Amino acid sequence: MHLNLSAIQTARIDTVATATLTVETSGEGFFEITREAARFLERIKARDGALLLFIRHTSASLVIQENADPDVRTDLVTALSSLAPADAGWVHEVEGPDDMPAHVKAMLNGVSLHVPVTKGKMTLGTWQGIYVAEHRARPHRREVVLQFFGCCDEA
Amino acid sequence: MHLNLSAIQTARIDTVATATLTVETSGEGFFEITREAARFLERIKARDGALLLFIRHTSASLVIQENADPDVRTDLVTALSSLAPADAGWVHEVEGPDDMPAHVKAMLNGVSLHVPVTKGKMTLGTWQGIYVAEHRARPHRREVVLQFFGCCDEA
Amino acid sequence: MHLNLSAIQTARIDTVATATLTVETSGEGFFEITREAARFLERIKARDGALLLFIRHTSASLVIQENADPDVRTDLVTALSSLAPADAGWVHEVEGPDDMPAHVKAMLNGVSLHVPVTKGKMTLGTWQGIYVAEHRARPHRREVVLQFFGCCDEA
Repeated sequence: MHLNLSAIQTARIDTVATATLTVETSGEGFFEITREAARFLERIKARDGALLLFIRHTSASLVIQENADPDVRTDLVTALSSLAPADAGWVHEVEGPDDMPAHVKAMLNGVSLHVPVTKGKMTLGTWQGIYVAEHRARPHRREVVLQFFGCCDEA
Repeated sequence: MHLNLSAIQTARIDTVATATLTVETSGEGFFEITREAARFLERIKARDGALLLFIRHTSASLVIQENADPDVRTDLVTALSSLAPADAGWVHEVEGPDDMPAHVKAMLNGVSLHVPVTKGKMTLGTWQGIYVAEHRARPHRREVVLQFFGCCDEA
Repeated sequence: MHLNLSAIQTARIDTVATATLTVETSGEGFFEITREAARFLERIKARDGALLLFIRHTSASLVIQENADPDVRTDLVTALSSLAPADAGWVHEVEGPDDMPAHVKAMLNGVSLHVPVTKGKMTLGTWQGIYVAEHRARPHRREVVLQFFGCCDEA
């Protein structure tokens, strides 16, 4: 294994900017929010720091994954369904057969993540997009808290 | 999919406050620490920013999940056991049959997460609680590092 | 369950330092980067804050796991392969049979995490190491963005 560390960039941080992004999903699947995250950073004139994202739910999650071939997202949904099947004999059944699998999927993916920001742009890899993963069968209204920690250009 | 971004709140950040929460678990299961996290934020008079949590172990993890019906946590434990069974023929067996499954579960859930904080309160969803997930069969003493990044009211 | 909160340490934060660590993997497996992360903190004279790590890929991930017995990493690779098998009949097959499983594994592990930093040292547990998990069969060049948020000693 070879390891190499780049030059180090240092910047002042003094600001946290917070907003809530509401995402209306159409049921199970992946819903991209990369563009809205970038727009948030533009609006606050973000410079250097990090974008923290948090989803306020227990049956939906946040995922950074491939944004090119949509087949990847189809397969990710299939993979999650095989890891948390509807017919596993769950104790918690009151909210329907898709509810407990949705909790398991949300636990595995997680509800918080971050992306570095340099000169106002997220340093996502070429094929990375940010997604709300909806794990319930029916449409839901999901809230994602976006926070930028860093420094911003003067307004 | 409909997307809507709320108004943006901006605040100054200048402080990191750090403490260690020790959690004595009684063996496999979920142990809620939401109240202790809230108390930490009160004690430092936190205003706006984010709470970062980190668990210093490789066979326990941090999870944000449903805090209402305890059956959900029962099913989450069952789900993890089916994903990382004790009898899978693990190479690493020296610390007992529950050890290697515990490492797998901790990897899947993760050991770090964050929650946004606004006006001193975590912006958790209605049904979200913060849990230490203990993956070993026997009781353990677990350490969680709590850190608030943001601004605080004057003492 | 017993819970106990330690004394609280407060420090000023004013700096974000960012660098990119390039890791040349030799194919599927875990590649430790703990030492390089520590060296980054030394070089910027970090004091108190947190180290945020982000990997810019969709078929590799970041994991904090046991750094003692290498059998644990062997078993973690086995566990991931059983959760995302190559022969599951994936729709996305164009990049080879190891590609879609790699996406699933990266989704489960995640691409971002953080570690608290106190007096310039990461507060990792005794057995915790930071790893790049390579999920593709062949060697890859992976980029990890390291960011320290906190305060630093004067140069």
